[in-house]
Formats: sequence, structure tokens, C-alpha cells
Amino acid sequence: MVVGVDVGGTNIEVGAVDSDHHVLRRAKAATPEGGPDDVLQTITALVRSLDVHPIAVGIGIPGVVHEGRALTVPNLIGWTVDVDLIGPLTEQLGVPVTLGNDANVGLLGEWTAGAARGGRNVLGLWMGTGIGGGLILDGRPYVGSRGAAGEIGHVIVSAGGALCTCGRRGCAEAYAGRRSMRGVATAMVDAGWETSLFRIRDDEHKTKLTSKVWARALEEDDPLAVKLFDTAIETLGVAVGSTINLLDLDRVVIGGGLAEKLGQDLADRLFDAATPWMLKPNPELKFVVSELEDDAGVIGAAVLARAGLITT
Amino acid sequence: MVVGVDVGGTNIEVGAVDSDHHVLRRAKAATPEGGPDDVLQTITALVRSLDVHPIAVGIGIPGVVHEGRALTVPNLIGWTVDVDLIGPLTEQLGVPVTLGNDANVGLLGEWTAGAARGGRNVLGLWMGTGIGGGLILDGRPYVGSRGAAGEIGHVIVSAGGALCTCGRRGCAEAYAGRRSMRGVATAMVDAGWETSLFRIRDDEHKTKLTSKVWARALEEDDPLAVKLFDTAIETLGVAVGSTINLLDLDRVVIGGGLAEKLGQDLADRLFDAATPWMLKPNPELKFVVSELEDDAGVIGAAVLARAGLITT
Repeated sequence: MVVGVDVGGTNIEVGAVDSDHHVLRRAKAATPEGGPDDVLQTITALVRSLDVHPIAVGIGIPGVVHEGRALTVPNLIGWTVDVDLIGPLTEQLGVPVTLGNDANVGLLGEWTAGAARGGRNVLGLWMGTGIGGGLILDGRPYVGSRGAAGEIGHVIVSAGGALCTCGRRGCAEAYAGRRSMRGVATAMVDAGWETSLFRIRDDEHKTKLTSKVWARALEEDDPLAVKLFDTAIETLGVAVGSTINLLDLDRVVIGGGLAEKLGQDLADRLFDAATPWMLKPNPELKFVVSELEDDAGVIGAAVLARAGLITT
Repeated sequence: MVVGVDVGGTNIEVGAVDSDHHVLRRAKAATPEGGPDDVLQTITALVRSLDVHPIAVGIGIPGVVHEGRALTVPNLIGWTVDVDLIGPLTEQLGVPVTLGNDANVGLLGEWTAGAARGGRNVLGLWMGTGIGGGLILDGRPYVGSRGAAGEIGHVIVSAGGALCTCGRRGCAEAYAGRRSMRGVATAMVDAGWETSLFRIRDDEHKTKLTSKVWARALEEDDPLAVKLFDTAIETLGVAVGSTINLLDLDRVVIGGGLAEKLGQDLADRLFDAATPWMLKPNPELKFVVSELEDDAGVIGAAVLARAGLITT
């Protein structure tokens, strides 16, 4: 048994995972906003609450991980410095701890036990508040020179175009990330458009336009939601097309809340949007949605934990 | 001694290369326009004309190479079908023959004996009639699922923008490939702009706007040439920025005729153009120009020949 930890901007989820990649026990808590020490304490408490004796722990965090250190973690509040997570956690938990980037770890889960199984050159694309990405190249995880690879959300689709949360203009995330889409929806309502998005948000007792809110608005054929979602898909199609021209992939796996709710239809739409941009369409290329859904992070982190036992 | 063969759209160059990657003898002929059989005969004649006894031959061709076969060779006239080059050439030359894509082979040369030496994650960007590219990832050549990877010229920088020779709109090559730049220059002259580009072309007894013509026009501060070249660099900066966000590279090597003529200044300009688009600038990242210049293809093909002896 190993434990996988998925640290997200909203929640931290942990799971005890067996060697068949099944999650046997789970625990979850809100991600603390007080910085790295609070996150460390929450992880330790959650792992202990599982009441198992893992042989290793793996962790996915939303930041750049290089040589076991979390260099930047932009989506966690109060986390501005390069932090050693492995040292303190190894000491507190008494087992080897391995750390990775959340998008890469999610794809590792899908590649080992989900929709990316058997893929040699794979892009994992996670549609969430932002657009995350991970890569498998030549049959192994690719993280780049400093662990910062996979940023499909910051592939530029229209130089000088829409303002992205990263400060640049024209990134895919500026059109397809939920944070950006909410900004545009708000501005368009201010400009006189009507939409059911904010009514659904209130109905669902949410504070943000979550993937559930978007899925319901799309189901209701809300014109503004349909328009913004069409743009998101068209834009991701350009970024994925560029990526395929550069990397000659055989598989694209789409995950995140919307992939869970819309299913294979989302993958098919993205495939249709990317195809016109591909220089040499590959008949073997497949677009699929995540199979592990919410568990991709925990299962991927468990895979990382086992790999850490072998290589360190 | 091995022989490296560099098949280009204009010329075929061959060189006898020693184990220190020095080209000891050379031969060159115009690329025949009658299709694959003529190309095969020219290669055989050129290799024999060197009057050496190579232990192996390596060939770089401007097309997609997969499992030893040239699948598509868009820039060679009369070459429309999937052709077996290795079988006939092995028979005629009597030594093992290995085949690769020209852009990948050029980068292999630079990586083994030139400006990409020591790079772990490298993009090779070749500025020519089109924009070619090759990748070294995780310390080895990366060619993708079907040998079609590296197409930096068809990374989209502005979806729906300028018409590319590939038929799509907004590829980097549509702004930075010499064929596209000549089209824009011609249209702008028709629209009343003045330029010394075509006078220099005639002075140099060329039929096309070669890199030499562009270099002279830039030296003379010809306003139209400067304007189009600025756009080319800005556009390549976007494509390279996207690529760095995706692949977290440590080196970019720029080759082709203009790199030879403009030198490190070209690499510095491209670095400045790419930097604003990089999500997490890497202090270790270097932009350099080709060291092997015109010989990159022949030397890279020789490296491929030696690798073929080991792996097959």
C-alpha cells in the first residue's frame, strides 16, 4: 500500500492505493491558506487519518517541481518561496516521499491506469480554473529542464489577443481557462448580454462558475455559455494543433471537471477543432477523456510514490 | 570513414566525414527534378565520386522519415509517393544506409559536433525557404510517433492570420519563411512600396530572394526588408516562446543561410523576441547560432550513419 496526495488550489485529497491502482481509503480537507507549513501539517494529518501503514507517499502539487523541491506554487495562497517539502514530510511520516507537478502526476495516473495507457507520445490537457498540461514523450514522462514543461495553457494561439491571467496576451488559457471565461462572462453581462450562468451558480450554491455550472448552462443552451465554450474549444484546438505539429503525438487525454461532465463528446469536439491545424494528420491519433476522473491525481501520486521507491 | 548525404530542395551535398566529425572530401550536384529514381542515381554517383571506401552512409532528406521509409517529401519535385530509399541504396553502395529527416539530421550534427553540444532539451530552428525544426529531448533526438515532429514552422502564432504555404492561416512560416516573405515583398511592391530587394537579387545574379539578398538589403537598411524581417523575428519569437512553455528547453540553435550571414546577432534578436512570451524564464536557457553552418546536414548524416552501424 502507498499513499497518493493530490494538492489542489481548493482541496487536498489523499488516498491509500493498492498495487492494482485502486483507491481503498480516502480523506480530504480544504487547502489551508496560511502557506507551506500549514499545507505540510494538513498533508501529515490527512495521511495519518487514513490509518494505513504505507511504504511510500507521493505528492502532486500545482507548481514547478525540480530535483524534489517546489520552486513556484502560484495557485497556493501564501506560498511564495522555494520550499523543501520532502525533508519535513519524510521525517514526519517516516517513509520515502516523492514530489511531482500536479498536471504531470495526473497524466502519470492516466498513463499507468487510465485513458493514456499504451500511449507513446501523449499530451494530458486539464481543463480547470486554468489550463494545465503534462507530457509523455518516447514512452516516458517528460518534464523538461527544470520540471516546468507541459504548459499547454500558455501556448500562444493569437499573439497580442486576449489578456491571460499570466499577464501575456493570446495564451490558450486566456480563452479556455474557467477564471478567464468567468471574467469575459461578467464583462459581457455588464455590457448587456443575458445569461443563465450566474443564476445557475446561485442555484447550485457555488461562489464560482464551476464546471458543474458550465455543464448545466450548456445543457440549457444558454447562448452566452455556448458562445464562450465554443471559443474555448476552438482556441484549445489551435494550441493542441500546434503541439501536435511540434511533437507528432499519438494520444491526447482531456481531464478536469468538464471532461467528467461532458465525457467523450468533449474529446471529439476538441479533436474536430484541432484537426484543421494539423500539418500531417495521423490516423493513429486518438483524443480521449480521462478515465480516472477525480482520482487521476491521487492514483498518479501513488504511482510516483512507487517509482520513488525504485529509483532512490 | 563514413559518408553523409544532405538532400536539399536545390542541391544534394555529400561529404566523407572522419570520426572527429571533419569533412575531408566533398561533392555537390543540383537536385534532379525527375523524382525519386533520379535522386537515387545522383546520390549514388556523388558518393562514388568521393573515391573513398565508407563503412556506412547516412542521408538527410526534406521529408517525413518513419522506419527507414520516406513517407512524404513535399519539397522535392516529382516525389509524391512513399519510397524505399534504403533498399536500393544499400544494394548499389554495398554498405549500410540510414535515413533521417533533414532538420532532425542537421540538429544531430550540431548536437554532436556544433552549437547544441551538451544541450539536454534543444530546439533546432532552420530559417530557409521554409522554417524547419528538430528536437533533442531528455538528451536524445526526438522525432515523434511517425518521424514528423519538430515542425516549429507550423506552430500557429496568430490563428486565422497570414496564409501559409501549407494552406493554413497563422503559422510561423507564413511570416518568417523566405518563400512567404518574398510573396509579401512582391505584393507590397505592387502596392507601391519601394525596396532594394529585387535590385540586389539581380545584382547577385539570383532568381530568388536568397539569404544573401536579404542580408545585403538589411545591411543597406532597406525599409521594406527591415520591416518584413522584424515581423519574421517577432513571429518566430512567439512560436519559440510557445515551444519553451511546452517543453522547458535549455537551448535553441538557429541555423540556415541567414544565421550564417547575421551570426550571433540573429540568435540574440530571437531571444529578445521570445522572452516576453516565456512563462517561467530559465536563466540557463541559451540561444545560439549554428556552428557547422552549411556542413550541419552532411556532418549530422554522418553521425546518423555511425549510429546505424551500432543499432542495426
